Amino acid sequence: MDRRNLHSQLPTGVTIYLPDEAARLRSLQERLIGVFRLWGFREVITPTFEFFDVLALGTDETVQEGMFKFVDRETGRMLALRADVTPQIARIAASRLRDRPKPYRLAYRTNVFRYEEPKVGRRREFYQAGVELIGLEKPEADAEMIAMAIESFRAAGLSRYQIDVGHAEFVRGVIEGLEVDREVARALRDALRRKDPAELARLVGELRVSSATADLLLALPDLHGRAEAIRRAGALVQNPRSERAVLALSEVHRLLTAYGLADHIILDLGEVRGFDYYSGVNFEGYAAGFGADLCGGGRYDHVLGRFGDPAPATGFAIDLNRLLLALEAQGIELPVTGPEVFVIDFTDDKAAALALCRRLRDHGVAVARDILSRPLGDSLAYARDIRAARAVVIEPARLARGEVRVIDVATGGGRAASLDALMAAPAGILEPVRGGVHA
Amino acid sequence: MDRRNLHSQLPTGVTIYLPDEAARLRSLQERLIGVFRLWGFREVITPTFEFFDVLALGTDETVQEGMFKFVDRETGRMLALRADVTPQIARIAASRLRDRPKPYRLAYRTNVFRYEEPKVGRRREFYQAGVELIGLEKPEADAEMIAMAIESFRAAGLSRYQIDVGHAEFVRGVIEGLEVDREVARALRDALRRKDPAELARLVGELRVSSATADLLLALPDLHGRAEAIRRAGALVQNPRSERAVLALSEVHRLLTAYGLADHIILDLGEVRGFDYYSGVNFEGYAAGFGADLCGGGRYDHVLGRFGDPAPATGFAIDLNRLLLALEAQGIELPVTGPEVFVIDFTDDKAAALALCRRLRDHGVAVARDILSRPLGDSLAYARDIRAARAVVIEPARLARGEVRVIDVATGGGRAASLDALMAAPAGILEPVRGGVHA
Repeated sequence: MDRRNLHSQLPTGVTIYLPDEAARLRSLQERLIGVFRLWGFREVITPTFEFFDVLALGTDETVQEGMFKFVDRETGRMLALRADVTPQIARIAASRLRDRPKPYRLAYRTNVFRYEEPKVGRRREFYQAGVELIGLEKPEADAEMIAMAIESFRAAGLSRYQIDVGHAEFVRGVIEGLEVDREVARALRDALRRKDPAELARLVGELRVSSATADLLLALPDLHGRAEAIRRAGALVQNPRSERAVLALSEVHRLLTAYGLADHIILDLGEVRGFDYYSGVNFEGYAAGFGADLCGGGRYDHVLGRFGDPAPATGFAIDLNRLLLALEAQGIELPVTGPEVFVIDFTDDKAAALALCRRLRDHGVAVARDILSRPLGDSLAYARDIRAARAVVIEPARLARGEVRVIDVATGGGRAASLDALMAAPAGILEPVRGGVHA
Repeated sequence: MDRRNLHSQLPTGVTIYLPDEAARLRSLQERLIGVFRLWGFREVITPTFEFFDVLALGTDETVQEGMFKFVDRETGRMLALRADVTPQIARIAASRLRDRPKPYRLAYRTNVFRYEEPKVGRRREFYQAGVELIGLEKPEADAEMIAMAIESFRAAGLSRYQIDVGHAEFVRGVIEGLEVDREVARALRDALRRKDPAELARLVGELRVSSATADLLLALPDLHGRAEAIRRAGALVQNPRSERAVLALSEVHRLLTAYGLADHIILDLGEVRGFDYYSGVNFEGYAAGFGADLCGGGRYDHVLGRFGDPAPATGFAIDLNRLLLALEAQGIELPVTGPEVFVIDFTDDKAAALALCRRLRDHGVAVARDILSRPLGDSLAYARDIRAARAVVIEPARLARGEVRVIDVATGGGRAASLDALMAAPAGILEPVRGGVHA
């Protein structure tokens, strides 16, 4: 390995966003935070690292294992990079915001860190945007989260997407009614989570339950669809936990229908996700043409209590790296622009170039200057590389006549323009250019 | 220490930005990145951590000591949180961008991490925005950096500020001419950096140098001011390094005068900063009423070579946490807003509220809904807490007449409004409210 390679190595799973990629990520962040703002959510910014034991309070064990940890020189306690923003916001809600009136509508856009094998579109450092709605236990809050997830996908520009909605208590009620031991319950949940009907059938065959109960268990993987899935589920169960879950899902579905968003919803009552974490309605979002979930969220009413101030809560997070890939898979482009103008100055006295740049910037037009001396062709190639829209060429002979050339960087087409006219109306520089490069 | 306190502890030197504080920080980031964009700089996003030895290549030893380090589980190599973005961009320039035409105009806005005792307005995790201009050795590039630093301060809203500009080679040339050993040279530099004339006089007294040379050394701390400082400095030195430095500074000053920015410049040829790092013109920015530097930057022509692709480079970084404090010290407020509308719904059928919210959002008006049932006074107190501008109260009796109440949250003034009219022209909701709360 030579010196240069050694010095350009990056750790596995981290990413450099060059200008085009950074522009796409920032544009997506702006769109999503824009949706969150429209729904009354205000951004908070959390620390990149905290004490591990504090973060661990609000996360699953698998997430805890995947945290980047290091020792605090000052206290000797273990620190960890955030793997998830939700526990940080839960802590803030239970401490800094404790005495403020609820509900809290909080948003974030930031990076999180997980020591996992990089998965579909996911890195060890990746970007999320999300919200937490704390202090509301009503179905309106669940519906608000799902509606916002849909609006987020729409704002991102996705063309085909759906949200799969389930309820943590439905399967919990069914399994509780079986009165089986912990290992069997876990095996059943795992088979459901993996959507593995053969394994489920094998496990059910070993249970001593009525044929009605066996039929219910075997029906769980098929309890998905539109509104009729709720009716099928309601007809199958007779325990109060599952029945309450059916009622809650039904009300959330009614609200989403009122929002005009029911077309994007698939209900899935046999779904098991984040079993130890979610306490009620939960969901994942998918886009056509992309295999992995783009967002996930749901109700986590038991988490805030661990931070000392019990409160109902729900929220969701969107994985921006995956969303970028899903947009690409759907052929949807995000805007990527460079400076609007690139000034190429062949005069010795830089006064005209400086004055023009200043005037353009005062009018909000972004300008870069070519300070290197090189042939015009090279300068135009450079202008293309930085994605400039127009080049302005200042040459002694033309300048003596009060003129500069304006070139459309993409087409190479050019026209002469009066410097005085550009100074008087700088935005004119962005008007379409017609004619050949020697105009 | 009770359970709650333990679980709400934060490590020293990290910060939570609640909505108002986050809004200020984001607004500042947007303004600065807006200035960088106007000058043709495009944002890149770098990894939060990299291999320590790679980052160390582009940083001073004191910064290396202050890095948060941890072991990579995968390779056993040491990782570190970035303490500075410049070495990351230097590495990118020398690797990923190597074959692209120069110059590179790259910008960033991000957090950096330093294991130091928290200083004036600076935390262990703090926010920076900055630029790097790579591939240009001309004075125009130095002038561009300083002009941009000034424009950044202006865009942030600072009212009184200055940039102190020096040149690394000036003092280097003077000290080199002394032919003293390394320890004496370091002691002289330290006395100059600390601006300690007594210590400087003591050191000069111990040197066996001509009285002209002693006078030069003792004059160094006073070589600051406007353009005349350059003339004084030029008259004092006779070595080629210092003379080239005087010429370069003089040209940069001429360009800044052409930019119309000379009023904000103080030249300081006796200044010693980042001695092992800077290779040419360098500067720091200060605001009236705030003691610490808000930005720093300069030419570092020797750094890119360490990453395998030598190139001249300059850049600067602004400390956003300090800039926020400086703005506060100058009594300058950044915009802090909550949702434009807060909907308080006393009807059982939520249809009117849902329809109004949807309509407002479609028109870009940010709306939060009160899903809790509570007395109107409590809902209005909540609306104030989240900084909503208007509350819309939907009550059964009024709604039957097709009306809602619009309340100015700050003043409590209210008026009746036709729901149909609001639906037809949603922006009307933001018009000034006159009259009492019972209107």
